[in-house]
Amino acid sequence: MRLAVDPSTDPADYTFVHAIRARFAETDAMGIVHHASYLPYLEEARVAYLREIGRPYTVLRDEGIDFSVVEAFVQYRVPLRFDEVVDVHVEVAALTAATMQLAYLLTVDGTMRATAVTVHGAVRADGRPTRLPAWVRELAPGSGPVSGAHRR
Amino acid sequence: MRLAVDPSTDPADYTFVHAIRARFAETDAMGIVHHASYLPYLEEARVAYLREIGRPYTVLRDEGIDFSVVEAFVQYRVPLRFDEVVDVHVEVAALTAATMQLAYLLTVDGTMRATAVTVHGAVRADGRPTRLPAWVRELAPGSGPVSGAHRR
Amino acid sequence: MRLAVDPSTDPADYTFVHAIRARFAETDAMGIVHHASYLPYLEEARVAYLREIGRPYTVLRDEGIDFSVVEAFVQYRVPLRFDEVVDVHVEVAALTAATMQLAYLLTVDGTMRATAVTVHGAVRADGRPTRLPAWVRELAPGSGPVSGAHRR
Amino acid sequence: MRLAVDPSTDPADYTFVHAIRARFAETDAMGIVHHASYLPYLEEARVAYLREIGRPYTVLRDEGIDFSVVEAFVQYRVPLRFDEVVDVHVEVAALTAATMQLAYLLTVDGTMRATAVTVHGAVRADGRPTRLPAWVRELAPGSGPVSGAHRR
Repeated sequence: MRLAVDPSTDPADYTFVHAIRARFAETDAMGIVHHASYLPYLEEARVAYLREIGRPYTVLRDEGIDFSVVEAFVQYRVPLRFDEVVDVHVEVAALTAATMQLAYLLTVDGTMRATAVTVHGAVRADGRPTRLPAWVRELAPGSGPVSGAHRR
Repeated sequence: MRLAVDPSTDPADYTFVHAIRARFAETDAMGIVHHASYLPYLEEARVAYLREIGRPYTVLRDEGIDFSVVEAFVQYRVPLRFDEVVDVHVEVAALTAATMQLAYLLTVDGTMRATAVTVHGAVRADGRPTRLPAWVRELAPGSGPVSGAHRR
Repeated sequence: MRLAVDPSTDPADYTFVHAIRARFAETDAMGIVHHASYLPYLEEARVAYLREIGRPYTVLRDEGIDFSVVEAFVQYRVPLRFDEVVDVHVEVAALTAATMQLAYLLTVDGTMRATAVTVHGAVRADGRPTRLPAWVRELAPGSGPVSGAHRR
Repeated sequence: MRLAVDPSTDPADYTFVHAIRARFAETDAMGIVHHASYLPYLEEARVAYLREIGRPYTVLRDEGIDFSVVEAFVQYRVPLRFDEVVDVHVEVAALTAATMQLAYLLTVDGTMRATAVTVHGAVRADGRPTRLPAWVRELAPGSGPVSGAHRR
């Protein structure tokens, strides 16, 4: 397991936020958003984050680089419901030569609903692992959500 | 619109059937299987049908042929619920040089839940349309679900 | 089959439009948005439409009324790709005492990608059909996408 | 974080296995099964497991008990591809008065593809937490996938 960060529960610790409205198709017979629906939310938010920092994912893919998902972790704290607008806060939380870890905080009207971490590696078009691009390695997780105390 | 068949509601009119158990992830907050979940059911059943007749889809894809979905129609008659085992009946209902129409009947314990039609064209690896393979054109819809009376 | 409208392919025939960016999770191994992903797009757009006309779906559900999906039809014309922003145009196309038909046109940068129709009935909390609310019946499809010539 | 187990990578450590064939709808534009599709696989496998041990989920729901998903973790090791038959091995890995942890190993033809853990709590029909049913607490994870050495 490479997962090594404990996401901050304070929105102020995140530098990027992306809003997503929960679809009816994403709910389940318990009347809440199904737990599997959160992973596409995280993905949409990190795609928006990459666009925001000038590294749109479509360009990366055209350059022959994909970010594979190596690990994913979600902690479901308070259910999401249909039509709620979820603020997905994103931050680069840890970097190695080969992997990037992103931390997420999901809130609705400022109250916490979930936290999550995804771990990514870079892969070439043929699916083989490669080093992370240099610009990723420069995304130093300095003031990010992971204080020293949060690292496990 | 190329859709030109009215699926039979009699299971005896279909030559192939494939069982799928409804997942909880496929339900919605109305407590039933969400209407968008039916299209993957149809797809799983037609993939099983192609395997059954000796034309596994993975081999077709390796040969550079994909079946695109040109049109899809579903009539939802009685809701499906979590954990129900759905019998998806499949039949080739109409063929032209360029398109194949499949008819579907969904039943649970012999009672009708839905009918559907999908219209497919063949595309090459680059996404450009091509003629249907010869073996498809030999799947004559003789004794299929579509009697003359059913054709619109 | 209640489906009785042929959606206009002219955006000017629609009074409401809602933009959705295609998620990576919604693509498939053909490199395009999977055909089943379109139904949640239509749903998100009609939920946005109901909100726009002052009839938010969450309020309807609290009042004990749901719109079931009775039929759905999609015609896939040009594939959608990851990260494209899809304009989903929506219009009430036909009304009876028991059913409402909505027509959809999906465009990207003004070029047509798909058209669709969904047919809805009103159901009570227990799932039993009921009459459409009066305000729905007042959504007369006068200047909508369906000219007389388009009706089948 | 309650996640406290490290899933065994040896199929012999699991007492239950459930086979799922990957759907085309579950793939993405990287040509592999999308990472979000794994969570419904885990869910389908644990529903099958509960049925196997005589505690079908539908009966539990009728008795007013749901198992909420409190946490989920997936480690993606080798991609899954369309039409592969995935053996999802399941084991109860840890129990407390309030939570149950399940460990999963996904293999294809005996080779490892992924491991996962889900953490569940019991909730009543109104969504409020309750104690796990007595029969769950008797599912002692004795010979399960988690040896002392594996526990973190």
